[in-house]
Amino acid sequence: MVTKALVWGENVHENNNKVVAGIYPTGMHTCIADALNTCAGITASTATLQEPEHGLTAERLAETDVLIWWGHAAHGEVQDAIVERVCDAVWGGMGIIFLHSAHFAKPFKRLMGAPCNLTWREAGERERLWLTTRNHPIAAGLPDHFELENEEMYGEPFGVPEPLETVFISWFQGGEVFRSGLTYKRGAGNIFYFRPGHETYPTYHDANVQRVISNAVKWAHNPAPRIANPNDAPNVPVDTAPEKITERGPRLHHAGEKGFR
Amino acid sequence: MVTKALVWGENVHENNNKVVAGIYPTGMHTCIADALNTCAGITASTATLQEPEHGLTAERLAETDVLIWWGHAAHGEVQDAIVERVCDAVWGGMGIIFLHSAHFAKPFKRLMGAPCNLTWREAGERERLWLTTRNHPIAAGLPDHFELENEEMYGEPFGVPEPLETVFISWFQGGEVFRSGLTYKRGAGNIFYFRPGHETYPTYHDANVQRVISNAVKWAHNPAPRIANPNDAPNVPVDTAPEKITERGPRLHHAGEKGFR
Amino acid sequence: MVTKALVWGENVHENNNKVVAGIYPTGMHTCIADALNTCAGITASTATLQEPEHGLTAERLAETDVLIWWGHAAHGEVQDAIVERVCDAVWGGMGIIFLHSAHFAKPFKRLMGAPCNLTWREAGERERLWLTTRNHPIAAGLPDHFELENEEMYGEPFGVPEPLETVFISWFQGGEVFRSGLTYKRGAGNIFYFRPGHETYPTYHDANVQRVISNAVKWAHNPAPRIANPNDAPNVPVDTAPEKITERGPRLHHAGEKGFR
Amino acid sequence: MVTKALVWGENVHENNNKVVAGIYPTGMHTCIADALNTCAGITASTATLQEPEHGLTAERLAETDVLIWWGHAAHGEVQDAIVERVCDAVWGGMGIIFLHSAHFAKPFKRLMGAPCNLTWREAGERERLWLTTRNHPIAAGLPDHFELENEEMYGEPFGVPEPLETVFISWFQGGEVFRSGLTYKRGAGNIFYFRPGHETYPTYHDANVQRVISNAVKWAHNPAPRIANPNDAPNVPVDTAPEKITERGPRLHHAGEKGFR
Repeated sequence: MVTKALVWGENVHENNNKVVAGIYPTGMHTCIADALNTCAGITASTATLQEPEHGLTAERLAETDVLIWWGHAAHGEVQDAIVERVCDAVWGGMGIIFLHSAHFAKPFKRLMGAPCNLTWREAGERERLWLTTRNHPIAAGLPDHFELENEEMYGEPFGVPEPLETVFISWFQGGEVFRSGLTYKRGAGNIFYFRPGHETYPTYHDANVQRVISNAVKWAHNPAPRIANPNDAPNVPVDTAPEKITERGPRLHHAGEKGFR
Repeated sequence: MVTKALVWGENVHENNNKVVAGIYPTGMHTCIADALNTCAGITASTATLQEPEHGLTAERLAETDVLIWWGHAAHGEVQDAIVERVCDAVWGGMGIIFLHSAHFAKPFKRLMGAPCNLTWREAGERERLWLTTRNHPIAAGLPDHFELENEEMYGEPFGVPEPLETVFISWFQGGEVFRSGLTYKRGAGNIFYFRPGHETYPTYHDANVQRVISNAVKWAHNPAPRIANPNDAPNVPVDTAPEKITERGPRLHHAGEKGFR
Repeated sequence: MVTKALVWGENVHENNNKVVAGIYPTGMHTCIADALNTCAGITASTATLQEPEHGLTAERLAETDVLIWWGHAAHGEVQDAIVERVCDAVWGGMGIIFLHSAHFAKPFKRLMGAPCNLTWREAGERERLWLTTRNHPIAAGLPDHFELENEEMYGEPFGVPEPLETVFISWFQGGEVFRSGLTYKRGAGNIFYFRPGHETYPTYHDANVQRVISNAVKWAHNPAPRIANPNDAPNVPVDTAPEKITERGPRLHHAGEKGFR
Repeated sequence: MVTKALVWGENVHENNNKVVAGIYPTGMHTCIADALNTCAGITASTATLQEPEHGLTAERLAETDVLIWWGHAAHGEVQDAIVERVCDAVWGGMGIIFLHSAHFAKPFKRLMGAPCNLTWREAGERERLWLTTRNHPIAAGLPDHFELENEEMYGEPFGVPEPLETVFISWFQGGEVFRSGLTYKRGAGNIFYFRPGHETYPTYHDANVQRVISNAVKWAHNPAPRIANPNDAPNVPVDTAPEKITERGPRLHHAGEKGFR
């Protein structure tokens, strides 16, 4: 089974910040996609904010098994209609991985239903990620902990719902902690949030980080056929009820009428 | 400790449907609030769609411990700005209870981040609610199961995230089942979804249903002071880091700058 | 990847009850294993209570990816040392599936830490299982609901911890409901409880039931190498701490001493 | 409502280690109970390993709302029959709080169904506990983080099931992290694990630690009447089924017979 990954990059700082351009000359999205393409069983392509429909047409999403999202400076420029389209795809079964500053990306906030806020500090300090659960598929091949010598700090409280699983927790040199790897499910779609990846550091060149992302892509892939209309709320007429019943009492809806939304 | 409850009613069918008006001559919201006002430790008032700002001004929400929401025909008429205000209040610590067709209410969908869809049938069939967990505070004083002789059917799959707890599951005469009582938390706010309450049946006159709602009001009340800005994402400057560190490496933000949103 | 399944059967009623022997002439475990062996990617064998060490030697467990457990009349005859061995294997990464009356099996109660009790009725009534979450891997290829014309009833409250996910809920003709498919994780081991399978009915000959079990076998398989000692609690000496620290204050343990248990 | 707390102490190191005796001259259990007795709405008493039945008679547990457990050197001396009695009380609705080294106490392991292992280091290093969720009742009155200047380190992976909620996460000077405050529910009983409290440091004299424990006592108190037999699995005879049904097919059990265990 091959997993088709699509790496979406905001692609702003790569073009207007020399430090970021130096670390990621072809863009962060390309760096991540290149790493994924070295993994057996994954084929990755890219899309960016600047493309028509942000590169996220209905056709593109339909053929994507797992979408990876990195955004920061331009969260507000993502069109609401595209956000709804992405959420529909997730509810229908597309996996999605949110990286680092995507904690404030519109689709993440939309899927969490929560503030998704945190504390932060940009000081190039050391981060150490700890596994909380050995042998989780997202941690396959990783040691119990690994380090990133320079990272932005994100600190608790992290304003997200209780996850299905907490997979990683980060220790920061400056004294904070953060739940760095969290799994969720919305509709038929698997969701993973992964913390590292500030654009002024070479985080996505790190082998352990690349391993987490490729593991997460495989984990998030739901091979079932995409649900065509994940928002459908069908009426079940009395005469097709699983058990034979007789209609009783007053009614609001006429037979065959749609429900209110 | 007194819990201040606010019962929000869409108040549409009570005014344009004779059956509903007959069962709830002063409105469903008033019926629910009246029942709550008989409970020691709860004082309840009401608000409706038709009031300015839907009766949900910032002042009103600030003094509300738990909001109860019933809507059906007019979900789409609820203003988005009010929805965000309600969600902010929840994230800051206000409890909220969604009743029946509020599964498609804007604030419920916003807080769930999921389709919230289901199957349905309006046939006045028998519903029997079962406790899944004895001695849950929301089930205080209730038997292991109780019946509503006439209700609308809601059937699984119910498109919501995995709850913190499944408190009730409904059996329907026509052969379906439904998770009828679910708890969630978003930010500092406790959330309870409770299924029964189709407007053409006298459900909110039922003593067991009233008991569930009053229990849920007490359960959802978070007595901590409301969080003033539940979306705040403060920077922690290097010199106030809990552990002494020295800034290293390149930076994106200037000192004192706000983060991107 | 081939998943090695081991179907453990208590194998009591098949030998002393004519009805059961008529439905399962070679034993329930053999019926289940035969069905699994028709699935691509699964090879299944069997073990029974009557074998030395109940057929669950350390070697046997070491080469088992997923253990399936059916027991009823002889829960008390399962040796405690074998129960601990099974739990150790689960904690180390072996998947395990508990069927029907195994809700009172020693290893299930041991892994749940809860009473695991329920209500029951043996009346050959109709059971209808509903999916709560479309496209779950355990439900692959199944419709939104399916029926078993004759089954024993199990009713809520079911005395188990909140699961990671509720995958199925059963409707019973006699008026009860039951959470019929529940996922858990303990250590590195995936756990699935599946309700149907009373021995006096041909449940394990049912194609949908067989499909659930084979899906669950694939879902429960953790391909990571088994954790050798899942109970290990290693000391981290001061001089190998990830960050350089100096020992301070009084100590209870001498250097190199093991912790208390 | 007054909450009756019972603080159980192993009471070993207080008697055979001068450092511990110096910090807790009347025992750790007494120190904790004294602090609880200063809180409005809580009355606390103590029990120790050395008392008959470890001070945990059926009568004593019946009148206890929340049990607090500290043990370390003598886990193995706790009688299995008392462990089962404690678990029965929890399943019936008694709250329980496990402190520090009680992660390896028999009742904790029994209720978790998991290895409960971790890594550790006794170096008197600094621990900083972070709230992950503002306004949680267990964190009432606490800042977003607080410090203990000298503590034993406990490190992830912590071998426990996914909790209902992660309330605290610890940062350690030596570079590790740990989920320090976790909530669970087993049967009708609320469970809280709280990490700090190594016996050679004055942790239970700390005001923030005392605040967490007293908050947790109030949180864990389930005011519903204790369930008399939390392991009961009653048969529901055909003629008392909620819906009228007719018995069909073969049966294993005679009418009125008990189920197998």
